[in-house]
Amino acid sequence: MDEKAHILTREKPDVQGDAHPKQLLRTILEDGDHLLPLEQQHILSADQFSPETLLQLFRLAAKYEANPDRFSTPLQGKILISAFYEPSTRTRLSFESAWHRLGGDIMSITDRSTTGIAKGESLSDVGEMFNNYADCVVLRDTRIESLNEMRSSLRIPIINAGNGLDEHPTQAMADIYTIFKWRPELINKDLEPEKRIKVGIIGVPDKMRTVRSLLKIFSTFKHAFAEVYLFNDENDACDKQVLQEFIDRGLNIIEGGTRFKELVPELDVVYINAIAWTGDDFQTFGKDFTLTPETPFKKGAIVLHPLARGEELSHELDQTGFNWYFSQARGAVFVRMALLTCLVHRKGRVLDVV
Amino acid sequence: MDEKAHILTREKPDVQGDAHPKQLLRTILEDGDHLLPLEQQHILSADQFSPETLLQLFRLAAKYEANPDRFSTPLQGKILISAFYEPSTRTRLSFESAWHRLGGDIMSITDRSTTGIAKGESLSDVGEMFNNYADCVVLRDTRIESLNEMRSSLRIPIINAGNGLDEHPTQAMADIYTIFKWRPELINKDLEPEKRIKVGIIGVPDKMRTVRSLLKIFSTFKHAFAEVYLFNDENDACDKQVLQEFIDRGLNIIEGGTRFKELVPELDVVYINAIAWTGDDFQTFGKDFTLTPETPFKKGAIVLHPLARGEELSHELDQTGFNWYFSQARGAVFVRMALLTCLVHRKGRVLDVV
Amino acid sequence: MDEKAHILTREKPDVQGDAHPKQLLRTILEDGDHLLPLEQQHILSADQFSPETLLQLFRLAAKYEANPDRFSTPLQGKILISAFYEPSTRTRLSFESAWHRLGGDIMSITDRSTTGIAKGESLSDVGEMFNNYADCVVLRDTRIESLNEMRSSLRIPIINAGNGLDEHPTQAMADIYTIFKWRPELINKDLEPEKRIKVGIIGVPDKMRTVRSLLKIFSTFKHAFAEVYLFNDENDACDKQVLQEFIDRGLNIIEGGTRFKELVPELDVVYINAIAWTGDDFQTFGKDFTLTPETPFKKGAIVLHPLARGEELSHELDQTGFNWYFSQARGAVFVRMALLTCLVHRKGRVLDVV
Repeated sequence: MDEKAHILTREKPDVQGDAHPKQLLRTILEDGDHLLPLEQQHILSADQFSPETLLQLFRLAAKYEANPDRFSTPLQGKILISAFYEPSTRTRLSFESAWHRLGGDIMSITDRSTTGIAKGESLSDVGEMFNNYADCVVLRDTRIESLNEMRSSLRIPIINAGNGLDEHPTQAMADIYTIFKWRPELINKDLEPEKRIKVGIIGVPDKMRTVRSLLKIFSTFKHAFAEVYLFNDENDACDKQVLQEFIDRGLNIIEGGTRFKELVPELDVVYINAIAWTGDDFQTFGKDFTLTPETPFKKGAIVLHPLARGEELSHELDQTGFNWYFSQARGAVFVRMALLTCLVHRKGRVLDVV
Repeated sequence: MDEKAHILTREKPDVQGDAHPKQLLRTILEDGDHLLPLEQQHILSADQFSPETLLQLFRLAAKYEANPDRFSTPLQGKILISAFYEPSTRTRLSFESAWHRLGGDIMSITDRSTTGIAKGESLSDVGEMFNNYADCVVLRDTRIESLNEMRSSLRIPIINAGNGLDEHPTQAMADIYTIFKWRPELINKDLEPEKRIKVGIIGVPDKMRTVRSLLKIFSTFKHAFAEVYLFNDENDACDKQVLQEFIDRGLNIIEGGTRFKELVPELDVVYINAIAWTGDDFQTFGKDFTLTPETPFKKGAIVLHPLARGEELSHELDQTGFNWYFSQARGAVFVRMALLTCLVHRKGRVLDVV
Repeated sequence: MDEKAHILTREKPDVQGDAHPKQLLRTILEDGDHLLPLEQQHILSADQFSPETLLQLFRLAAKYEANPDRFSTPLQGKILISAFYEPSTRTRLSFESAWHRLGGDIMSITDRSTTGIAKGESLSDVGEMFNNYADCVVLRDTRIESLNEMRSSLRIPIINAGNGLDEHPTQAMADIYTIFKWRPELINKDLEPEKRIKVGIIGVPDKMRTVRSLLKIFSTFKHAFAEVYLFNDENDACDKQVLQEFIDRGLNIIEGGTRFKELVPELDVVYINAIAWTGDDFQTFGKDFTLTPETPFKKGAIVLHPLARGEELSHELDQTGFNWYFSQARGAVFVRMALLTCLVHRKGRVLDVV
């Protein structure tokens, strides 16, 4: 090993810096009332938030991100059950880190086979049990219905961290938070049409929960998007009924099919998610889509990827200005901190925590 | 999913309420001296407690249960090793939740294959190791002898969370705590004979550690019980020698065999535990015993079940007055909090914690 | 079970007592400046420390060990990622206990199959992810290169808890800390030659990372060692090039081959490590080397073993004066506390924590 390998460098060139959360913080006016509904909510779907509530959440997240060493611990004495029946490290650690930063305690369930569910216990009973043990539950499962079955008996909030092919709402929240950090003006409902952005998503909503949730959140802020393209390794990949639902919401969504290379020079945001969740296994999707410094990106464009990545996103992009995926991952912890604070620290004074 | 699915209801009709812990708290006179012996004890068997010590533990548990938001954190800085070599979620989370509520930290071992034991290390050496790392150990294992082997070298307390077919003392403590919450007068040694209760247990002590421990605890308070029936899906199921041991302790224990349906109208408490631990696997026991709203329960009777449940206990009983199994699960956390406080917070002033 | 089995004895005859950390504390003069470089370091190899830095770490460890109830919690609010891709209980719990004692929070990864690595994610990306979630990483892996690959993107310190056959630096630090507790005069660079000690190690450095790291640390304090023997169950077992590297460092290292029984009466320290890490599995090494009260130890000699032990180290030695392996295990937690404090609590005032 290199002689100097043991030298720790705490600051490396940070491609995106922290000027961006500060800028977003200044752009969103504070209005804490919009956070109050969260005290009475489970987080199931990207659909359930008003744009005002989301913007206040993002404001709080930006406040945390801009001041990572100067916030209090509002979740002291609170317990989270981190139930990942479907394997994950990234999302699990993101939530657990957020909860720890806020001062709370955690009980993890990472192996379905060590649970009562292996004994045939209903998820409704598992929820009743969790009521006695904790203040909040985060759940990920390959099985879509698990979320609703557990929720039916819960008297504490549950957060959907991914339920089968259905949704992954906090990921979508983190994704659009990143877009707003990049271009705070996009929050403005009265945005001039020429300032709207074009987004290209590699993936289809009916097979990828991250894409479905993302399009729902885009619909909530549809004023910001000129066009949203869906690319795939084949044409006519997207379920037409699903597509129509988003068109009906007012999102200008276009099937880009296999025309990614042709259209990428027009895109402001390229969102790639190469991991398709298709049941109990992962398929690498999009071998035809490899983003590298040679990709003909538009000047000033950004790349987003929920990670983990494979070959579809070249490491050579990491040190370029296109890399907003690291900022996306970093911001996700702060978005989750903001959300958890509002769900659990129910004193109506969440904005005092930082 | 239902449009309103994301609405969280924190209070649902609580079948048993919290009036009961308060009533029990008033009924047991405070006498903290009886808790002092616990500072020098491992918790191995339901046998080892005097009735006075148990009542003071239940008093502390009731104090915690009646004031779930207003107690201090006496286990701050203390570490628990939560060693579940036998799979469990319910008991593990119950203990871990109790320890967290008291302010302590936890290290979990949930997979035997990731431990030194896989390397052939003796449990006595594992205990010696734990002395350096923690302040308390909770152990569950399919192997009966593991508990004693680990205890032999420990200089910190160990709690038996289930050792093979032998015992599960804290479950039995939680079970009788529930009975006392339901009928506080039962704690009285001078109880009039006509007020004694009749209990029916579905299961046999020689195959079910929960039943063995429960009968031991019943023996400690034998004045409260007129009759204790053991039911089974066959006659003469119970080991006669085991039965005689309880008769010798003064418990009026009767083999009910297959006569459950005939006798249930006389029972004040119906205790069902359908999961028989018979080695390394679970067998569903008692398919003939299905409790439903149609079961001819005595008026005012209660049903207890340590959970997880299967078909033997209908969900339709959940909203009825027979449902004391949810209260049983909730109370178990507070009983464990009381016990852990007395074992670990060795300042002789445990009663000040709430 | 024995009727008195439930009685907890908190103090058993402690073979080595705590007079020893106090004596070491008095022997090493305080000089906190030597700890400052640790604020900018990963802990990869036993090679990377100056003797002055190690002595100050041992001084801090001795301070913790002599005052186990009277230190502050400098890691409050800090998060450790405990990543044990290779199974372990002892080392994992040793680190986690140390971190908890200092007031920090922990996220554990104990099953490689539940991580993003199973998805083909690079360790460099895993490190980038960890930057967002935690303040420190501890890593153990069967694969030698994992450590460096993860380190390459980390902006928080990583500690090598065992990387394949290569090194296990904190174990070696704990080992020599134990030797210094036993004979504090050995820290003295001007030690009279006749006071140097003879050490016998059962095992070879090229197959055992604990031995490799230990010899590196011995080299750092070579003035203390008259002779270091390497014993094996065959002659000419040690790679000559590896041996020469240590000879070049000035360590008087001698291949003892199979001559253990002949030479043991001369040895001041007998170090046995019967578990050879040879890839993904354990081999019991050294069935010919069984230490018992009948072994012809030198008077006043000590036995060290990193544990877990098998048949090679008899339990009958536990109550004898040769048993310094329990002290070795106990001290390891305090050495890790000292190291973690210096790496993470970067206020330049670590010596105030106790």
